[in-house]
Amino acid sequence: MAQQVATNITFHDGNVTRDERKACMKQTGGTVWFTGLSASGKSTIAVALEQVLCQQGNPVYRLDGDNIRFGLNKNLGFSAEDRAENIRRIGEVCKLFADAGVVTLASFISPYKADRDAVRALHEEAGLPFIECYVEVDLAIAEERDPKGLYKKARAGEIKGFTGIDDPYEAPEQPELVINTGNQTLEQSVAAALEGINSAGLCS
Amino acid sequence: MAQQVATNITFHDGNVTRDERKACMKQTGGTVWFTGLSASGKSTIAVALEQVLCQQGNPVYRLDGDNIRFGLNKNLGFSAEDRAENIRRIGEVCKLFADAGVVTLASFISPYKADRDAVRALHEEAGLPFIECYVEVDLAIAEERDPKGLYKKARAGEIKGFTGIDDPYEAPEQPELVINTGNQTLEQSVAAALEGINSAGLCS
Repeated sequence: MAQQVATNITFHDGNVTRDERKACMKQTGGTVWFTGLSASGKSTIAVALEQVLCQQGNPVYRLDGDNIRFGLNKNLGFSAEDRAENIRRIGEVCKLFADAGVVTLASFISPYKADRDAVRALHEEAGLPFIECYVEVDLAIAEERDPKGLYKKARAGEIKGFTGIDDPYEAPEQPELVINTGNQTLEQSVAAALEGINSAGLCS
Repeated sequence: MAQQVATNITFHDGNVTRDERKACMKQTGGTVWFTGLSASGKSTIAVALEQVLCQQGNPVYRLDGDNIRFGLNKNLGFSAEDRAENIRRIGEVCKLFADAGVVTLASFISPYKADRDAVRALHEEAGLPFIECYVEVDLAIAEERDPKGLYKKARAGEIKGFTGIDDPYEAPEQPELVINTGNQTLEQSVAAALEGINSAGLCS
């Protein structure tokens, strides 16, 4: 039990306000949702962007398959229902991080428009910034890159329901950002993402 | 597409390191898990603590029934299986926030030791600080407070499986912190929590 009462403890009824949060975090925060084909470069951009923002002192966190599929969503498979639930849960976690004032970088193929729109709606209803970033690349280029050999397996029929091969990728119709990784360097892609994030006020 | 390349973009292979994260957040972060009976004062303490940490400039976020049950876990009920999944998902989200360097305040009855221990293990495996804070109060006092009339309903048999009435509360055996809200003020409880968090190095 506390014998002493700290003198700097003051609190009010109810939750931390948005203004109080912003003053603490020194930024507004929000979600940047990277969507695109496998091997489009989503995660590569997000990884580099996280480092840059971190160096700048902007609270930032990245969500991707590595920290979601083996954790929060480890009990989900790849059925249509599970894919939708996968994106739903990720969207809810993004909303929490955005509400915490963190610049949240989500990097998922997220091929279906309806799933992405649901995540956008979650944020908009809560008054939280949401930037959809379409990481665009020609299928032929993604397939040429194929760093994990997944396209090859999909073409051979060893993987079923692979986005771009035997499952559709529904490109965003009105994304806030488009980054084409087929015709620019990683540095240019990261600079474009930074510019979009700054314009949208997430870091200020 | 970016016409200009920002000059301050530098990045390395792989993820942001723990040291880089700490430099950005100006703190280590970690999870503080408040457990205790309904009406023990868990959320009251967490709400006040979040305000105090926020005022101090420490990145902090609070998870509780309000932002979890109606969001991430809205598709879960109160069966034994769903209760376990509820705490599992919350634990995974805490781990993500802690990994992001945020001081994460989780406020859930979480009556079963096994569920809480699983959350602790998740953090320990990842090398992330985890503080279990037992918010202790006599059942009689909690029942007297009964701000939402839930104990009354449980006694009347209108709510089944209510912790402390017809479902057990398994008190922590070795919690890092114990706060008894039956014999101290909210200011004292918050001061005790702050002292525990500071001693554990979450804010530094």
